[in-house]
Amino acid sequence: MAAPVEIHQLGDHVGESVSISGWVETTRGHGKVAFAVIRDGTGIVQCVFLKKALPEEVWSAFETLTQESTVTVTGEVKADDRAPGGFELGISHLEVLHIAEEYPIQPKEHGVEFLLDHRHLWLRSSQQRAGLRVRNELTKAIADFFYDRDFTRIDTPILTGSIGEHAGTLFQTDYFGENAYLAQTGQLYVETACPAFRKVYCFGPTFRAEKSKTRRHLTEFWMLEPEVAFADSDENMRLQEELVSYLVERALENCTEELKVLERDTSKLEHIKPSFPRISYTDAVAELKGKGSEIEWGQDLGATDEAILMEDRDLPLFVHDYPKQAKAFYMKENPEDTRTVKCDDLLAPEGYGEIIGGSQREDDMGKLLERIREEKLPEEAYSWYLDLRRYGSFVHSGFGLGLERTCAWITGRHHIREFIPFPRLMNRLNP
Amino acid sequence: MAAPVEIHQLGDHVGESVSISGWVETTRGHGKVAFAVIRDGTGIVQCVFLKKALPEEVWSAFETLTQESTVTVTGEVKADDRAPGGFELGISHLEVLHIAEEYPIQPKEHGVEFLLDHRHLWLRSSQQRAGLRVRNELTKAIADFFYDRDFTRIDTPILTGSIGEHAGTLFQTDYFGENAYLAQTGQLYVETACPAFRKVYCFGPTFRAEKSKTRRHLTEFWMLEPEVAFADSDENMRLQEELVSYLVERALENCTEELKVLERDTSKLEHIKPSFPRISYTDAVAELKGKGSEIEWGQDLGATDEAILMEDRDLPLFVHDYPKQAKAFYMKENPEDTRTVKCDDLLAPEGYGEIIGGSQREDDMGKLLERIREEKLPEEAYSWYLDLRRYGSFVHSGFGLGLERTCAWITGRHHIREFIPFPRLMNRLNP
Repeated sequence: MAAPVEIHQLGDHVGESVSISGWVETTRGHGKVAFAVIRDGTGIVQCVFLKKALPEEVWSAFETLTQESTVTVTGEVKADDRAPGGFELGISHLEVLHIAEEYPIQPKEHGVEFLLDHRHLWLRSSQQRAGLRVRNELTKAIADFFYDRDFTRIDTPILTGSIGEHAGTLFQTDYFGENAYLAQTGQLYVETACPAFRKVYCFGPTFRAEKSKTRRHLTEFWMLEPEVAFADSDENMRLQEELVSYLVERALENCTEELKVLERDTSKLEHIKPSFPRISYTDAVAELKGKGSEIEWGQDLGATDEAILMEDRDLPLFVHDYPKQAKAFYMKENPEDTRTVKCDDLLAPEGYGEIIGGSQREDDMGKLLERIREEKLPEEAYSWYLDLRRYGSFVHSGFGLGLERTCAWITGRHHIREFIPFPRLMNRLNP
Repeated sequence: MAAPVEIHQLGDHVGESVSISGWVETTRGHGKVAFAVIRDGTGIVQCVFLKKALPEEVWSAFETLTQESTVTVTGEVKADDRAPGGFELGISHLEVLHIAEEYPIQPKEHGVEFLLDHRHLWLRSSQQRAGLRVRNELTKAIADFFYDRDFTRIDTPILTGSIGEHAGTLFQTDYFGENAYLAQTGQLYVETACPAFRKVYCFGPTFRAEKSKTRRHLTEFWMLEPEVAFADSDENMRLQEELVSYLVERALENCTEELKVLERDTSKLEHIKPSFPRISYTDAVAELKGKGSEIEWGQDLGATDEAILMEDRDLPLFVHDYPKQAKAFYMKENPEDTRTVKCDDLLAPEGYGEIIGGSQREDDMGKLLERIREEKLPEEAYSWYLDLRRYGSFVHSGFGLGLERTCAWITGRHHIREFIPFPRLMNRLNP
């Protein structure tokens, strides 16, 4: 009996007879010789069927194969640089496991709504596989980065009673008679874990009921949120540039094949190393005005402003110390210019925009309360958050990195929806 | 200036003067000498204040310290086996960062509702820190285990349009005019990713709107769900016992201190290695009847039955091949006894009950449709799931492991609510 192996292991079995179970991607025949490309989830391999060398029933079975049918093929492994994947199987046996009905996704252009309707099948396509393998690598890289630096992972709740940043964009549910909201951020929770563990992070799904239909928005996406006790805004930016550089490095090291499938120009990534340039919001506004933007000091940067700012830059850029009124209530007032807060946005090059937003947090009870009242937030709901300033307040900082946006930038792809297995968009809840 | 260090690094700085920033756990004084235990999130250290060796203002500052105040202390590191943490600081300077108000959690018995109301502060207590550090280790161990075995992580959606296993226990939300439900499982989604990646898993929060108030229930908990193409029920159980043994090994290796704090008898863990014993449901019922249980063939095992079954067993036990009517619609009919399905529950020893439920999935389109109709499930909502049996059906299996239950068993603690940072219970949505 031939040993069952996976396609990514074929290099260890050249000259041997092995069997492979998988899905038929394509078939073609010429009367005397026929070919099938088989995918088993670990790679693809070309199978060669020689009519004269095969029993009649194997040749007939080959002729019944449709796209995405499942088979177990047995044959001898040959190294062949011309074959997709680098190996070929000289088939001696074919077992048909299941003949697929006519497969909806064909090697032609499909509309994006059609593809999203068939997302559970679209996943099988090579570019989608490559994109999600990059996501897989970056997810593991994040876990490694923080574990190796003694961070404690704090899984923060999705179901929350308190009100997040933007009360208008919350999904709501009935929680045994109470109103609960799906968390937009785990930040307030990870902050409270700092006095227990010093360096913490959460990494999980977050939710925004935003009526946005851009290539950069999902209603459900994964966000990484580290938080560090006794770290100020400056240290916070250093952690961000170390992390982002590490993620790029891991993708370059371990996703060579995937980046090739996605046709990524990796020369645009190789120089992504600390430190990243920094520009204050105030200087950025001056630069933008010099370049013709109509932005006024006090306004947040729009996508166009971000694009202008990144025009001649090929490293990510920190824009720091934004006006207080443009940012969230919990950000630390800048002692050197109290109109601003100690925060940063990290803009990716090549037009990918913001991939990180971070800040030092307000640790002064009086100032935090003042901001909560200014923003007319429900003070009672923040009581537990305020406790962090009652019982041993401390300098601390953190940030949020959007996983799908980071994947899109690193792979050079246009739409972040390709980097989550089942994207949730304003008009899409299925499959 | 003394270098700022973290407490877990003190061993590298014996004889040097360092500074530590952290929270005051306790203070005590005797007129001439005083002590403070400082926690910085990486450990605790005892600080010794000698009145005659210190400037007047440092001694006075010491006297203002309250529990959980934040300080930066400077002093010389001495190794001292009697000191908690193994080191002592001979203090030369004290900077008070913030004087805490009277701290609600005192070194006395508090009621559990009080502690849960103050969960954001309770996290700072040594046993809670230890429990969540074990969770952190197991979470990383899971990521390592599956990455090293070439699994692809598939983050499945929380917001779902289709109906899960138990329609009565779903949280519901309005999704731009449609009904959405919070996922109880990612299984159906990971199944569809098998033809793309062969071996996949999801690991994230899941939701059950169950009116259960036991020590083993949370309304929001983290579940790991691997799924493997071309693996049958037997292989599935082998993967489970390898994973569980690996998790125990990692905890024993890397959580020695934490298990000590939690007073875990680790001798009950050291023999947890593959393979685990297996008993069929049918044999289990016979055994239970022999021991006086009133269970009848066809009923699911209750908590009491599980306890009886585990009485004289010190390894986890697989109970496999349950009656079809006691299990979910997607489980594979057992060809050797069609009254049963190819599934397993893994019961932990020491009364911890089920930590895993797994099964081979029904890959026959006709049988799956029949079960969906029998259970009166909305066929249309499962159309994409059925596609997996239309386009290249294949043998596959998977399982779900509850993270918090696994933590509770490995640490030997009674309540799973201690193993999630902010537990969600029927009567608890805050903080």
